[in-house]
Parts: sequence; structure tokens; C-alpha cells
Amino acid sequence: MARIAALSGFPEWLPRERIAEQRVLDNLRETFELHGFAGIETRAVEPVEELLRKGEIDKEVYVLRRLQAEDDEDATSPGGDSSPARGLALHFDLTVPFARYVLEHAGHLDFPFRRYQIQRAWRGERPQEGRYREFTQADIDVVDRDTLSFHYEVELPLVMAEALRRLPLPRPQMRINNRKVSEGFYRGLGIEDTAEVLRTVDKLDKIGPVEVAASLVRAGCTQEQAARCVELAGISSDDTSFTEAVTALGVTHPLLDEGLEELTRVVEAGAEQAPGWFRVDLSIARGLDYYTGTVYETTLLGHEHIGSICSGGRYDALASDGSTTYPGVGISLGVTRLLGRLFGQRLLTASRSVPTCVLVALADEESRAGCSRTASRLRSRGIPTHVAPEPAKYGKQIRWAERRGIPYVWFPQPDGGHEVRDIRSGEQAPADPESWTPPPADLRPHLTNLSEPHDG
Amino acid sequence: MARIAALSGFPEWLPRERIAEQRVLDNLRETFELHGFAGIETRAVEPVEELLRKGEIDKEVYVLRRLQAEDDEDATSPGGDSSPARGLALHFDLTVPFARYVLEHAGHLDFPFRRYQIQRAWRGERPQEGRYREFTQADIDVVDRDTLSFHYEVELPLVMAEALRRLPLPRPQMRINNRKVSEGFYRGLGIEDTAEVLRTVDKLDKIGPVEVAASLVRAGCTQEQAARCVELAGISSDDTSFTEAVTALGVTHPLLDEGLEELTRVVEAGAEQAPGWFRVDLSIARGLDYYTGTVYETTLLGHEHIGSICSGGRYDALASDGSTTYPGVGISLGVTRLLGRLFGQRLLTASRSVPTCVLVALADEESRAGCSRTASRLRSRGIPTHVAPEPAKYGKQIRWAERRGIPYVWFPQPDGGHEVRDIRSGEQAPADPESWTPPPADLRPHLTNLSEPHDG
Repeated sequence: MARIAALSGFPEWLPRERIAEQRVLDNLRETFELHGFAGIETRAVEPVEELLRKGEIDKEVYVLRRLQAEDDEDATSPGGDSSPARGLALHFDLTVPFARYVLEHAGHLDFPFRRYQIQRAWRGERPQEGRYREFTQADIDVVDRDTLSFHYEVELPLVMAEALRRLPLPRPQMRINNRKVSEGFYRGLGIEDTAEVLRTVDKLDKIGPVEVAASLVRAGCTQEQAARCVELAGISSDDTSFTEAVTALGVTHPLLDEGLEELTRVVEAGAEQAPGWFRVDLSIARGLDYYTGTVYETTLLGHEHIGSICSGGRYDALASDGSTTYPGVGISLGVTRLLGRLFGQRLLTASRSVPTCVLVALADEESRAGCSRTASRLRSRGIPTHVAPEPAKYGKQIRWAERRGIPYVWFPQPDGGHEVRDIRSGEQAPADPESWTPPPADLRPHLTNLSEPHDG
Repeated sequence: MARIAALSGFPEWLPRERIAEQRVLDNLRETFELHGFAGIETRAVEPVEELLRKGEIDKEVYVLRRLQAEDDEDATSPGGDSSPARGLALHFDLTVPFARYVLEHAGHLDFPFRRYQIQRAWRGERPQEGRYREFTQADIDVVDRDTLSFHYEVELPLVMAEALRRLPLPRPQMRINNRKVSEGFYRGLGIEDTAEVLRTVDKLDKIGPVEVAASLVRAGCTQEQAARCVELAGISSDDTSFTEAVTALGVTHPLLDEGLEELTRVVEAGAEQAPGWFRVDLSIARGLDYYTGTVYETTLLGHEHIGSICSGGRYDALASDGSTTYPGVGISLGVTRLLGRLFGQRLLTASRSVPTCVLVALADEESRAGCSRTASRLRSRGIPTHVAPEPAKYGKQIRWAERRGIPYVWFPQPDGGHEVRDIRSGEQAPADPESWTPPPADLRPHLTNLSEPHDG
């Protein structure tokens, strides 16, 4: 191999960063499993036509073709052919594959189905900070058949809050809205094409309230309707006071009442279980048409420009096979977007670049078998240990361990005894390989938030 | 979505199987980390020309193309263009990407570099049992700069043995050879094109000794040379007796002696640390040209026809940037090949289809907040718990838990107390959410070998 160049948009972590990523994923998985979510993985590919069905993403999909495929066997050719090599593309998120998984395996799943999925996805986007061509997502969803209780719209964002709170991150905040509030309000104003209004209001952050109002008028709203829509989107609060602010706008509709009540229930549960986590923000629209209830978007305070790290919502019909409809609530965490930022800003790392806790020093090659037995005894009690690669002066072996962040070096003694040295303090003491145990904090590499004086 | 069909060669597990797979991967990772291997992941794509360099795999590669790519931007077009969308394909193993990773990041890695990598790979092969188009591999490698000590050729197969022994599998056996034995023997016979002989002998299993001998003669060997080569390949033993059998063939060469001595050291270490794991089999050639020392292949006894589940070897030059060469030893476990067989034969499963240990029964919707608090208290002590989806008669909620294999149902009592029921025994007793703890075996789903009377 000659020239080796990094591929823009395809991030790859060094061992220390990967250990940090793995610890983050372990924490997420631990929280999701504590809440009874079963982990699944789906295949990386879906039929192109299924991916395109969700609209607006056709520019971003990577289609596959076997290098030696026959001319008539291009992966992009439309369906109708049963060859599995044809018409396949890499999934661009985990929601579309999950919907297909539910339909394909419905007969073997128990509903309501609580699942988490931590996997990579691919988009052929122009890479920039927060946008990658290959990235890892961590999704949780609850899906049921025909109907799905509202309480999951309260539960899921709180599970994600708990997962994120366990990590030493800058403070995240989840902004929420409810589609019923927006849609009920628009209907109460007499607007019929509520989807068009939603799409326009979704641009508020980018184009500002004046342009949104003008755009709404061009789309057929009266000046009065447009003004009210912009006013609604301007409402936000950390508590339930948003209800009064909405009521003060003088618009009424049964769907609006329902939405306000649901949003209130989410906020009240958050105040009890995750203070400071939720902020009601009625400008949150979320582009995707399939949301029908609560919607979620999460920013990292101080890092808002990378976009939402964690978003989702309620959908009444994520999937349907004609006879059965599958409603759900889902939230997706952009792991690579989050970590790319934290690693790039040197805000998060792991305490060492190897899992090793103990290095057994090697006096000479003849001692290797004995050192291996010592290492094996430590490992049998769960202590990550290996023998030094080559015999060398002990000072050199200590520096070898130091460079990797290995906290302990073990010295077999000429008399058959053992000593262990904490190379951070330099303290060395006799130890028995059958009973010596490091402090729990040293056993595994841990996450370190570099912006704080102490480990997170 | 209308018609949903499984894609041949792209396996997807149901939740219970996925939990079993996850447990297997957790066990592998645990063993690898105990031995000080750092986990890395590489991007899923490599430049097509780098993948093709390894030869013989050009038919199996999936190339990528952005669906909306310009005509001149086909991913299969040869290099010379810096656009990252061009000339990319999905990796077909984890060795080629690892070699590239080492070269690309060499300045940031500590050598000898011990790494494990558990990731998917893709091949456009015709699917059959044991061969998939998308599959998970678990690799361990040690790579050093310029020189690599022999002892890793002893260590790595023993790490893999330890990893597999922790799993409730049919008995695996690793067959080993050493390229120096074959090559030294061929040279001692006066054969020059030893690579051609190796490739021919590699077909022994498929075409038999008579055809191998004939093929060697056609390639330029004398009858005598061909006969000796076939005799060498016929030697196998569970102990070090292979040395005498080789010596009896009357061929001598310094490289042969070196190979025999190395193979003996591997076998002796195996006899001490993993009895029954190694079998010397001098017919093992391993197709890939880059192996230069010990080579490994592993079959699952009773399931030999799915092929090797775990193979690898020593390579003196896995990667090179012109000035530095990186020798290594690596072994790759075919996780999907292994699990596809075990799941397909119903030999392995998980003890339940959800991570949940406790279901908190729900008397009525008004009790949900209190039940959530109880669940939260159990979770805070590491017990996977969630609240029943809907209020229902307790008998119905017990059956709901039973169907998923959840072992305990928790009943809040009208007087504010609590009772917990082991639904397998039907035993129900008062319990305190602040202190009640299930037996450790019930806390998480565990692996079950269905061919044995007891759990593995």
C-alpha cells in the first residue's frame, strides 16, 4: 500500500477514543436494557425503493453493485427482479429498517415491542461538522399494534435523559412540542393545509419570523393567520406556563386542547424525574411527516451549532401492511455527531488507550511461562493483564506501561514472591496473585470529561 | 410498505437470538480485553483498488455509488480523483482495513499493538450454509514494527481458545501447521516454486491425494517429490509426535527444522493451557500468500461441513509503507457462520427474549406513577425492570411476562407494601424495592446450549 489518506466523512477513532466511544455505548445499552428494551440489529441494506419511499433522501443514498455484476444486474435497476444483489442500498437511518423489521417479523415479535438498536448508517452527504457519511446511531422505540398508549411519549424521552445523564457530557436539553398543538392551532385558525404551515414554520431558525410570515401569506394564509402562527412558534417555557401563553392567543380547537394536555403531562413528569431536561418550544416542527404527537429535539448547551444530537417523536403509522398498523414512539441519538464534537474539542476521552490494568514485567525470556501463569491468575479474577512483550530493564518496562496509561506493573521476585507497583504513585508492595485486587476505578478505562477538574 | 421478503445472505436475528449473539460478543470482548487487546473499529469502506490488491476477491466486492452521483462519478471508476465518493467498496474482511488503519495511524499507535475488532463485513457471494453476504467477524491481531516475536504465535490461538471455551458450544478444535515446515520441506526436496505446491496441497480436502500428486507432477514436480509432498500433508497428531513422522520422510532443511521447533512450542503450550484444543495437521495450507509462520484453522466437531469458524496465522509483512514493515499474527472468528449454524440447528439460544428481569404489575392507570417509582428503585440497583403496558387482571399480566421469559412479577399492595412472584415456581412473598435482589443468574438473560441437559 502506498499513499494512505483519510476519507472525509468516514470518521475513524484511535484506540483511546474508541475506548471512550465503547464506554458511551456500554452506558447507553445498560440504561436501555435496565428499562427492558431488547437490542436488535438489522441488516445494513434495504431495497432502494423502500428507502426512497420516505422522500427527500434520494440524493443521500449509497447503492451497492457487485464489482463483477453482469451489465443487466446493476443494483440501481428498478425492482421486479428477485436477485438479492439488485436494487440494494445502505440504510440512511435505523427507523426505516426497523419499520421493515417489524413488518417482516411481526409474527415472531411480542407487542408492545420495546427495542433499542445501536448501529451504523450511511448517507452520501457533503461532510461537515456534525454531518458524516458513516455514523453510529442509538435508537429506542416502542411499537405496538393498532393503538399505542400515550404514556410512552412520557417514558421514552425520560429513558434517553437517564442515559445521557450517566455520561460526562456538556449539559443537554431536550426541546419538545406536540404536533396536535400546532395542527389543532392551525385548524382553529381555519387553515386547511396544516402540513404546509408546519414545513414553513420549521424554517424559523433559518429564515426568521418575518420571512416565515411572508412565506405563509404566499402559501395562502391571511396576514392575521400568519401572524398567529408565528406567535405560536415563539412560545417556549421550562414549565407548564406555555398553556396560558397559547390560550392567550385566543384560538380554540379540540385537537389543540388535547395537545396542550399531553404536553403538560410530559413537562410535569420531567419536572419530577429529570429537572431541567425538557423545554417546551412550540417552534419545534421536525421535518418528517409521519410524526403525530410529541416531538423531541435535543441540543448540547454551548454546542448548538452541530444541530440536534437526539430527536424523534410519536408516529401513528410508522409501518402498515394493509391490515395492521404499527404506531410507535422513537428517539434517535446521533452518537457520532455527539462524539465527533466532544473528541474534536478534546472534551471527552478515556483514562487509558488499552484495557490492560496490569503489565507483568519480564526479566528474561526464560521467565515467560511463569509470568504467563501469573497473568492468567490475575485474569481469572477479572483483572485485565498481559506480560511485557520483551525482556528489558524494569525502568524501560515501567515507561512502556506509562505511555499506555496502564496503572500497575507486576514484578515477579527472584525468591518466587511478587511485588506490584502503582506507577502513578511509585508505591511498590508485596502482593499475592491469588488475592491482590486493584481499586474498582482502576480495573477498566473510564470516561474523562476534560473540561472538568475531576473525572465525570 | 407492501411485500416484505427476507434477503438471502443477509441474516437478521429475532430478539432472543440477538440477545444470544450479544452475549457471545460480550464474552469474546471480555476475554480479549482481559488479555489487553484494545478494541477498534474501522470504517466500512475502503478504496476499491486497495481491496483488489489482495487478489482473488474481485468478484465478491460490493462497490458503492451515490444514487444521484454525476455520470462521471461512478464509484467503480479508477482512482486519480480525490472525491471520497469515488472508488469505494465495502470491506470483505477485517484484515485489509486493519492493515490500512495501522499504516494510516502508525504515528499515533503504540507497538506492539494488540487489537481486537468485532465488526461486519460484506461479500457478494452466492449464499449457502456458512456463507453470507453480510456477516460479523471477531478478529484479534498483534502487530509490531519491523520484527515480531514468535511467542505471539503461541499466545493468540490460546486467547481464542479461552474465548471459545467460555461459550456453550459444540467442541471446537484448532488445526495448526507452520508455513516454514511446508516450505522448508519443499525446498529440502529441491522444489523452487513452493507457493504453487502450497496452493495445490491446499486442495487436498477437495480433490484427494491422488489428484494432488498428479497436479504437482503437471506443475513440474518429479513423481518422488509429489509423493513426499502428499505424505507430508498426511501427517497429523495431537501431540509432538508429528516431528518424528516428518523426520522419517528423510527430508532436511534449516527452515524445516525451524518450523518443526516452532510448531512443537505451540503444541506444548497448548497441552498445558488448553488440552485438546490443538491438532497438528500438516495439510493445513491456508490460501492466502501472506502467511509466513504458524497457520490456524478451526472446525466445530460434528459441524465440519460449514468450514473453518476461526482461522489465521503469522504474516511477516501484513502492511508496509516502503520504509517500515509491520509483521503480525492474527486470528479471525466467523461469528455469523458459527451462530447461523447453532441457531439454525437450535443448539444455542438465550434464556429470554427481553432483558427485563422484573415486570411491575399495574392495577389501574392511576397507579402508574407509583409503579414507575418502584421500577426506578429496582433499576437503581441494576435490576432491569419496567411497568406493565396496560392495567389488566393480574393473571393476564403474569402470562404477558411468561411469554417473554421475564422471571419476576412485582405486585404493589393496596396497603402500600409490595410482593414479588417468581412466576416459574409460583412462589410469592413480601419484598422491599430498596433491598430485594434476584439470584445473579436471573438478573440478565444467559446463553443456553439446547443440546445439553443443563445450561452451559
